[in-house]
Amino acid sequence: MKKIIDPWGAKLPESYEKIVKDFGLEQYRDNFPEPNRLMRRGVVFAGRDMNIIAEAIKHNKPYYVLSGIMPSNEKIHLGTKMVVENIRYFQEHAARTYVLVADLEAAATRGVSLEEARKTALEFHIPAYIALGLNPEKTIFYFQSDNKDVMHLAYEFSKKITLNEFRAIYGIADPGRIMSALTQVGDILYPQLERRMPGIIPVGIDQDPHIRLTRDIVNRTKEKYKFFAPAGLYHKYTPSLDGSFKMSKSKPDSMIELPEDIKSVAKKIKKAISGGRDTLEEHRKLGAVIEKDMCYELLKMHLIEDDEELKQIHDDYASGKLTSGEIKDIACKKMTIFMQEFAHKLNKAKSQINKLNFIRFS
Amino acid sequence: MKKIIDPWGAKLPESYEKIVKDFGLEQYRDNFPEPNRLMRRGVVFAGRDMNIIAEAIKHNKPYYVLSGIMPSNEKIHLGTKMVVENIRYFQEHAARTYVLVADLEAAATRGVSLEEARKTALEFHIPAYIALGLNPEKTIFYFQSDNKDVMHLAYEFSKKITLNEFRAIYGIADPGRIMSALTQVGDILYPQLERRMPGIIPVGIDQDPHIRLTRDIVNRTKEKYKFFAPAGLYHKYTPSLDGSFKMSKSKPDSMIELPEDIKSVAKKIKKAISGGRDTLEEHRKLGAVIEKDMCYELLKMHLIEDDEELKQIHDDYASGKLTSGEIKDIACKKMTIFMQEFAHKLNKAKSQINKLNFIRFS
Repeated sequence: MKKIIDPWGAKLPESYEKIVKDFGLEQYRDNFPEPNRLMRRGVVFAGRDMNIIAEAIKHNKPYYVLSGIMPSNEKIHLGTKMVVENIRYFQEHAARTYVLVADLEAAATRGVSLEEARKTALEFHIPAYIALGLNPEKTIFYFQSDNKDVMHLAYEFSKKITLNEFRAIYGIADPGRIMSALTQVGDILYPQLERRMPGIIPVGIDQDPHIRLTRDIVNRTKEKYKFFAPAGLYHKYTPSLDGSFKMSKSKPDSMIELPEDIKSVAKKIKKAISGGRDTLEEHRKLGAVIEKDMCYELLKMHLIEDDEELKQIHDDYASGKLTSGEIKDIACKKMTIFMQEFAHKLNKAKSQINKLNFIRFS
Repeated sequence: MKKIIDPWGAKLPESYEKIVKDFGLEQYRDNFPEPNRLMRRGVVFAGRDMNIIAEAIKHNKPYYVLSGIMPSNEKIHLGTKMVVENIRYFQEHAARTYVLVADLEAAATRGVSLEEARKTALEFHIPAYIALGLNPEKTIFYFQSDNKDVMHLAYEFSKKITLNEFRAIYGIADPGRIMSALTQVGDILYPQLERRMPGIIPVGIDQDPHIRLTRDIVNRTKEKYKFFAPAGLYHKYTPSLDGSFKMSKSKPDSMIELPEDIKSVAKKIKKAISGGRDTLEEHRKLGAVIEKDMCYELLKMHLIEDDEELKQIHDDYASGKLTSGEIKDIACKKMTIFMQEFAHKLNKAKSQINKLNFIRFS
């Protein structure tokens, strides 16, 4: 049976290395200059056409980075934080930056009206993206429901793919998923209507099907449009605190949201799967099983910027000098600081929302 | 195997009576007051929820009639003429009248740009509709590609139907057809965003699947939208001049287009299948096989308004008094007059195009 990455579902890939092989991805290997934390630590692990973007950066040629906001409720999770950090990386490397609000998708699937979806985006998600490092002055925003060009592209592209081809990419096909996917393809290519240029889409690996569909459609419409195929940049899932592959909304104890009350976070961290040994004696002797420790993963992926600091903790934990309880304390303290800073920046960003560069559509 | 009416394809239903039965249609039986030629002569043969519209007419309550223009090339066929005549009937019975230009569909499937599609609609199709009796002052026009509300509805509706349900209605499902169909559902319901009211969609019977899909979706979204399910009014196909079920663009000799050079039309009429007998003697004795005579069908469906006049020709042909050659002569003369009048009215309508009521979208 053909292997499928399912961006909507619960099926989990067996290992990232296998994904790279099965889906013909390029493994991430120091592709970009001045790599960010996620790139340096293998959290960004794969991509497509990354070198086209690296060349654009190197030769100062125009390119874009694009991402979407799904404005359902006033929460984001740590996976979104990684996306924003990768957008920020490219924004700081001269990318024209597009962030769209998927209000159509939110209205169609999350039981909110278009108006509510817009309000939530303006009052929470966009400020949250800014709080996480997006530069609002250098970002072009639009609402999907305003953007007729995206809808026109989606309509046209629907004629360029068969049901079986869709199913081969997504593993499943139904009208709702087809509409969502084609609209995303429209979003991904929209910046090129103004100017043909390469673009990169940083996403969780589960979103690769959208990149593949877009690349197929670029190929099928090349005579008419001459679009550049989008590059992809994929990060790993933020691991679930209970040790399962991916945080999941169906298991609230497994995931940390932004914002989240620090007491609630502390409780989850206390319960998280650790890499500590059964007894202190054994732990001092053998050291921790670091790859099992979810709090260490949190430190590595999200909470410690400085590589030296992280390495020290790693080595001390590996040698048994640090206990799993101490790792949890560190994670708890760092998370408290992060949550406080996030709350502060979020409030500040909310006050700037009137100055955003929204595309005005005629 | 389940029977399917295929609005895109070439499969032909065996008989209209069977269609009525198989698809649970209401047979048309004097449903409407002051019936037009097509209603009086059984060319309009079925519908859905016709009595809701009849009640609206009777009690002078608001309702709408809606149709779409596919602006590919500067030709329409006689089937379109029937649609326009039925729109006109409801327009003359106080219906709020909507005519949309399916420029998105034309651009996606007919290899024209949106701009070309619009131009063709403005320079030919809309004037042709006016020439065929549409009152431009009482008609609300819009371009599909301008109408974000229609696209938003299509997006939302995509989540309300499964692939199997789509396939059960259309017999086939692929992304292109799904996008077209959902957009048509959006068009059909769009007038009700402003005001909930019943509406009727006069179409060829092959378009019934769109009405069924719309009715299903109205049912599934009733809590949110409380739309009225659209009524349908179905006319028979204009028979092919070669005696096959339906005129077809793949057999140019079988069909008459508007406009068409009268010499070309005359040639096709000369070659058309007739109901005449093998010899004149036999014909005088037995009379014509009228139901086989395509030129008589043209007279009945399109060319003779006066019932008495038609009946006289019918009786004289049935008795053998009129020959098939004479029927062809009559058809030829009437068609010449019709084509001349159409050309005249078309030119006049073209000069009025600036005064149309196009919806201006913000």
